Amino acid sequence: MTRGTVEAGIVYLVGAGPGAADLLTLRAARLLGEADIVFHDALVPKAILACATKAKLVAVGKRSGRLSTAQTFINKQLLDAAKRHRIVIRLKGGDPMLFGRAHEEIAFLRRCRIRVEVVPGITAALAAAAELQVSLTRRGAARSVTFVTPRVGDGEAPSSWLEAVLAADTAAIYMGASDGARIADALIAAGKPPSTPVVVVQSASLPEATQLAGTLGSLSSLLPAGRDGPTIILLGEAYRELAVAVVRKATHAA
Amino acid sequence: MTRGTVEAGIVYLVGAGPGAADLLTLRAARLLGEADIVFHDALVPKAILACATKAKLVAVGKRSGRLSTAQTFINKQLLDAAKRHRIVIRLKGGDPMLFGRAHEEIAFLRRCRIRVEVVPGITAALAAAAELQVSLTRRGAARSVTFVTPRVGDGEAPSSWLEAVLAADTAAIYMGASDGARIADALIAAGKPPSTPVVVVQSASLPEATQLAGTLGSLSSLLPAGRDGPTIILLGEAYRELAVAVVRKATHAA
Repeated sequence: MTRGTVEAGIVYLVGAGPGAADLLTLRAARLLGEADIVFHDALVPKAILACATKAKLVAVGKRSGRLSTAQTFINKQLLDAAKRHRIVIRLKGGDPMLFGRAHEEIAFLRRCRIRVEVVPGITAALAAAAELQVSLTRRGAARSVTFVTPRVGDGEAPSSWLEAVLAADTAAIYMGASDGARIADALIAAGKPPSTPVVVVQSASLPEATQLAGTLGSLSSLLPAGRDGPTIILLGEAYRELAVAVVRKATHAA
Repeated sequence: MTRGTVEAGIVYLVGAGPGAADLLTLRAARLLGEADIVFHDALVPKAILACATKAKLVAVGKRSGRLSTAQTFINKQLLDAAKRHRIVIRLKGGDPMLFGRAHEEIAFLRRCRIRVEVVPGITAALAAAAELQVSLTRRGAARSVTFVTPRVGDGEAPSSWLEAVLAADTAAIYMGASDGARIADALIAAGKPPSTPVVVVQSASLPEATQLAGTLGSLSSLLPAGRDGPTIILLGEAYRELAVAVVRKATHAA
């Protein structure tokens, strides 16, 4: 490198995991400690941001309606930061490569010849499974698990989430909390029995975590309005024992 | 607790992640440092076992043909250890709740009234996605990803892996390395185009990691015999750019 030229920094797309600070990977924790600037999702907990001891923290929430504009702006921010700093982190809830829109950021940064690395994180479905102590797969019974989101942006093609859920033994539905009635109606109309066991886990791995078990037919009632933490809907025969336990408890209470 | 009674220890089912020691979670690393005894899968790398600084290490490989016998023996070993030690770890490659047979160990230990906790880990598909820098999902294009294994034990019901792969936008096939021809034949016979992009990632996150891109029709040639590390087969349109790049390279070389 000749004197006077400026070498751009590296952008790490880092998975923040489900929420508990000690479910960060060792690599993520180390990089956060070394980072000059961290662009983080709005939902990443403070205890995790605290690992970025010397970094400037920039929240890049995508809660507005105009998702694509927001993404373009985030891309631009990452590029500008990489030109000015050595270590730039884009910190995403869960894992960056699963519903994290990492593709758009990676493609943009590569076009701009910025070095990118991806650090995986614990995704919400795995944290929920650990908390429930119910395996997503079960030898001889559940050999496939599908992760989907029914959320579709403006002008996007309809998603194949329904077919994917119907075909898999176990399903983990991301970003479905505000859409419970529509999800249940669509699955039941497509032939999934209303008695299919369902568990809704909110804020998995955090002290405020909640778990509600029931059936597909009662999904709406498991998703009260105003819930704020990341929520995952788990569906499949693997959850029958949990669902039955809840129904029994309700019967005894009545 | 009255004098003379012995309180059993706690068994942690811990995900060791894909292989790189710094892709352990902070929680897993801490617990390994505190553990009295660690029962680990045969494939967990030495650098990870080195975190268990004061524990007795017991390899419990399940490479024999008689899987169920081996599992019964592991269950018994975990129970005996919990009666004698304070912190017992069952360390599994990847995540315990995904193809980890955690269900059998949890059910057994609970019946024996042993406390169990599960610590999630980075699963191979997410490590492979990070390494490839290709997201498993893509807004507007790939909204579902399914994790399956075609491996079926003796006397078990046939798995629904085929239907799950056909219905999902992206598929990650675990434990399929020795079965490439059968997997490709079954998918193509079921209507999946032979031109479907495929990437095979072996030993994701480790220095010896390899990535081979191609198509479903060429899957067998991407899975040479004698491969030893954990291998994941990724399938779907998300990998078209990678597959095309490889074909181009081959054409130029010819």
